[in-house]
This record gives sequence, C-alpha cells and structure tokens, in this order.
Amino acid sequence: MPELRKDPVTGRWVIISTDRAKRPNDFVREKVEIRGSGFCPFCYNHESKTPPEIMAYRSDGSAPNTPGWSLRVVPNKFPALRVESSLYRQGEGLFDKMEGFGAHEVIIESPEHSKTMAMLSPRQIEDVLWAFHDRIFDLKKDRRFKYVLIFKNHGEAAGASLEHSHSQLIGLPIIPKRALEEVAGAKEYFEYKDRCIYCDIIQQETETGVRMIAENQAFVAIAPFAPRFPFEMWLLPKGHQSAYEQSLKHEYEQFALILKSMLMRLDHVLEQPAYNFVIHSSPLAEGSNDYYHWHMEIMPKLTKVAGFEWGTGFYINPTPPEEAAKFLREADVPASVVG
Amino acid sequence: MPELRKDPVTGRWVIISTDRAKRPNDFVREKVEIRGSGFCPFCYNHESKTPPEIMAYRSDGSAPNTPGWSLRVVPNKFPALRVESSLYRQGEGLFDKMEGFGAHEVIIESPEHSKTMAMLSPRQIEDVLWAFHDRIFDLKKDRRFKYVLIFKNHGEAAGASLEHSHSQLIGLPIIPKRALEEVAGAKEYFEYKDRCIYCDIIQQETETGVRMIAENQAFVAIAPFAPRFPFEMWLLPKGHQSAYEQSLKHEYEQFALILKSMLMRLDHVLEQPAYNFVIHSSPLAEGSNDYYHWHMEIMPKLTKVAGFEWGTGFYINPTPPEEAAKFLREADVPASVVG
Repeated sequence: MPELRKDPVTGRWVIISTDRAKRPNDFVREKVEIRGSGFCPFCYNHESKTPPEIMAYRSDGSAPNTPGWSLRVVPNKFPALRVESSLYRQGEGLFDKMEGFGAHEVIIESPEHSKTMAMLSPRQIEDVLWAFHDRIFDLKKDRRFKYVLIFKNHGEAAGASLEHSHSQLIGLPIIPKRALEEVAGAKEYFEYKDRCIYCDIIQQETETGVRMIAENQAFVAIAPFAPRFPFEMWLLPKGHQSAYEQSLKHEYEQFALILKSMLMRLDHVLEQPAYNFVIHSSPLAEGSNDYYHWHMEIMPKLTKVAGFEWGTGFYINPTPPEEAAKFLREADVPASVVG
Repeated sequence: MPELRKDPVTGRWVIISTDRAKRPNDFVREKVEIRGSGFCPFCYNHESKTPPEIMAYRSDGSAPNTPGWSLRVVPNKFPALRVESSLYRQGEGLFDKMEGFGAHEVIIESPEHSKTMAMLSPRQIEDVLWAFHDRIFDLKKDRRFKYVLIFKNHGEAAGASLEHSHSQLIGLPIIPKRALEEVAGAKEYFEYKDRCIYCDIIQQETETGVRMIAENQAFVAIAPFAPRFPFEMWLLPKGHQSAYEQSLKHEYEQFALILKSMLMRLDHVLEQPAYNFVIHSSPLAEGSNDYYHWHMEIMPKLTKVAGFEWGTGFYINPTPPEEAAKFLREADVPASVVG
C-alpha cells in the first residue's frame, strides 16, 4: 500500500510507493567511470588553466599556481555570481532584483585524476572538509555574504562537467528559500518543544534502527523518513551543532570516516551512481543557535528523468527508506572505515 | 553581469546568468519524435490493455472500452496513490504519515498515436481542457480530496514513459507544499495591497512588453521575471480567476488556442524539446477567492542535468527571460492560431 509521508522539518509531503518498491537493480543507471581522456585543467602542471588559486594545501612549500599541492581552491572559471559586483538592489515595478554579487569557487579535492571522492583516503577527505571550513571562515569576514552553499555534483548525470573530483561553493548575499524553510521549521519545533528537531530525529532513529545506516563516535547516517529520492541519505553530527564551520577537529575526522563509508556503500549497492551532496547549515549570521542542526544530504541520481518532480514540486519515491537503509547498512565496507 | 531575481509570489531567488547567456541553439537537446514502434495501450482496439475507463468523449454512441472515442480518461495502471485506500492518519514517533489515498488518472488526448499535443486541432485541445474540468468536478464531490494536480510529461527526458500524447491527474488528500506556498504568498500580497499579485503581474508585463510572448482575448503568455528554467513560460487568464475549473466555455476556447500556439512556438524555437506543464490552481476548498490566480507553467527540459537544482533547491538559469520571450514571440505560427 502506498504511503504519504510528511517531512517533519519542512512540512513537505511525499508519496512512498511501497507497492512497486524498487530495489537497487531496478534502476537504469549510468555508471560513473573516470575515463581520463582529454585535457584536464585540474591536474598537475595545468594550474595556469584555472583562474589563480584562492588557497591551496601544500606541504612542500611549493609556490602558488604550481604543482605540489594536495588540495586547491580556485574561482569557478564560469562563475554564476561575481565578487566584483556591488550589492545594488533595485525594483522593477513590483519585481525585486539585485546585481549578481557572490562567490563561486571550486575545491579540487586531490591531484589524482583517477580517484573519485570515495577512493580518497580518510585523511584526504578530512582535508576537503577543512577546506570547506576555511573558505566559509574567510567569506564570513565579508558581511555581505548571508549564506554559503557547499555541494558536490558527481558524474555527468548529476551535473558535473569535469570528471576530476571536485566540490563547489557558492557564497550568496541572500539566504536560499530551502535554507530559510528548514530554519523556520526547526525554529517552530523548538518554540513548541524546547528541543532541536534534528536531535529528536537522531534519538528516534537510533532507538528504532529501521532507517539507520551506520554510526560512529560523532555521526549518524540515516535514510530520512520522507525522502524525495530513492536511496537518499542524511549524515548528522550526534551532538547538537548548528553550523558546519563550528565543528571541532575530532568531528571533521569522524565526518571524513562516515562520509567515505557512505560513498563506498553507495558505489557498492548502486554500482557507482552519479550523486549530489549538499551541506545544510545555519545562515552565517545565526551560526550558533539551539534550533538548527547542520547535516549533509546525499542524493544518488538514479532515475534518468526527474521531470515530474521539478515540474510539479511534488515527489514520488519508489523506494521506501527502510529498504534503502537495509541495503546500505548491509553493504560490505572495510572495518578500517569506522561507521 | 549576472543578476539575482526574486519571484514575487514565492520569494524564491534565482540567478540569471546574463553573462554566459544561452540561446536556443546552445542547449544539447534530445528532439522528441514519435517513433510509433511497439505496442501502444492508448491506441484504438487496445482499450482492454488499460484499466476500465473513468470517462470518455464519444460522439458515435460507441460502448465504453471500445474504439470510437475521441478522448479517454483511465486510471493509471501503476498508480502512485489509490482511491481504495482509507484516509488513516498515523504518527510514528515524531513523524506523520497517512495511507496512500488518492487518484492517479491518465487523460489520453486523442486516438492518433502520431500526433503530439502541439499537432492536435484547437478543438481537440479544448476537449482535453474540458476533460480536466470534468474530472476535477467529479473528484471534488469526494471531500477527502484537497488538491488536484494536472500535468503533462512530454518526451522521455521529461518523464513520459509512453509516447502517445497524454496528460495526467493526481488527486491528493493533502495540499502540496508548492501550492501552499504560492497561495500563502498571494494572500500576503493581497492583505498588503488589496489586489491579486498575478493581476498586477499581468498588468505590468502588458505595459512593459519585454517578457510578453503572446496574448489573445482572454489569455496572456509571458516569460516569468524570475524563471527557474530556460524558456519557462506562464499562461494566465487576463481576468481574475482563482481556480482552473471555474473557467467559462469561451475561456477554454481561448486557452486551447494560446496553448497550441505556445507549444508550436516551443517546437519551432527549440526543435521539439521535451517539456512538462503543470496547472497551478487554488486548493479545492478555496475555489473562489480574491488572492490566487490560476495559471499554467510550461517548462521545456533543455539541460540534460538538473542535478544541481534538485540537489540544492537553488536555481541558476542561463537564459534571461527577456531573451527567451523575444525568441518565442518572433516564432512563426499560423495566424489561425490566435495568440
């Protein structure tokens, strides 16, 4: 029997069609494979093919924009927004617009062209997480930024135009609607219960276990109760933490481990699917609060057609999260990757 | 210079990247072509291959579920929701769910397998519009339905699994989030201004003309100010009308004409793209009100990858609506199709 389920934070209803439940093998997938053909601006010795680097991790003292880096952050060559713009706001009759001020950066996760993020070492992934942290702190100094969106498109089907593993960052002078809604929903719950809704979700999911995928000292990975997409996963810090950039060193270590574990599980269960991940965090000005809880949402791109969903704003998910969690929980990952 | 633009109804900001503006030919499209190969359950003499019809237009007095019809409405063979379900609502700890009560119907728009909706006569399209009307009225009798979502997926890339031209209807016991948000935004504007925001938009777009695509006696077709997708189009009745099903006969005639004109323009400018359309209408219980204005949104599926958008909930549109409107306005359509 199909079910209608409501996301407790945003109030979004989704249809979970338990009837025609889809298992991992039922999806027509495009396997993401690193081909390595063609010129790659993200590889060693091609540093001049990107705009000059904003920062890099270099342990060998090498000069900026030369080889020797282990991670590199550069402006997007085709930025959606520009820091050189002003914040000029303008009306156009009843409409509102502003100049496209903002930052659009690319985090090149390692010099190794052939490695996906799932194949990087926990230590390398930790560096990526530190790069996110460092960039948020730097952008935060400029009070014009209200929100930093951190995300990854992995595979062409998920929107990646280059295969060399990278994440992206968009710094915005406005708070995107999705973030506003989540914060508002979490606030409402806090006003009613005096508890963080995500902390309550973590407690319930830990107790029932049906949607739990893995956990380690500091993090849980769950399939959310009302997922929009098959095999959607959320990674949340166990302790209450409202903003990503306020995590502690040991939390980034633990996050790197569980993230690697989840990406390996995805590759294993769904045969190297394309995916997106997005970090959901508090707006910069509300960095430390009691109501919002940062987390990462990972969405494998399994259905070739997302037409219905983006057309109607209404989601039908053919895989119950309890089944998705079971497959992901039972996937074989090395014990060295905690979680 | 890129721009950030705000949708005045929902408050959603989008990035319009005027810098790297994309023209019709810049998109990698999959042209939608009717192949006609394989067995089609929507063709004459295959009536038994669909669930028994809910209604049909038959001018020849032919029996139900036999040939002779000009339009046929059948339950979806693989429904996302079922009318046989109860409305049983249940908590699961802090989560809310209900049984998958609802209707999922398919409107087979004509017996002709080889004709897309754009190729149907205005009269045939009018019949499709009447079928939407008739089905909404019928479902409305059952007070468990709160909202009826009417949409079309045209082409595989937009989610169509069968090529024979059809639309779909999902009757819901809840109001989808997207509809709630639009109604709330329109209400807020009405409380502030005592005017319908869509009526104001129509007036402003008619005066400035830059985003106007076409108009006839009863409808306007515009490119919205803050579109999520390249070449997105909105069709709105000129007179204030809150619910689709409350339109008058002459309005359906005029709507059929402008809809055909818009679909022909799309085919012309973008070379038969896949597209989705969705009718946005008031919730059933608020059928007649001063604040909401029904309309249709048409979204061609031009980018192969919508990954970024559904991942982040944040939209980047590479085609300014003013340019899209210009291309669509100047497209060659026969004078017989008013608008």
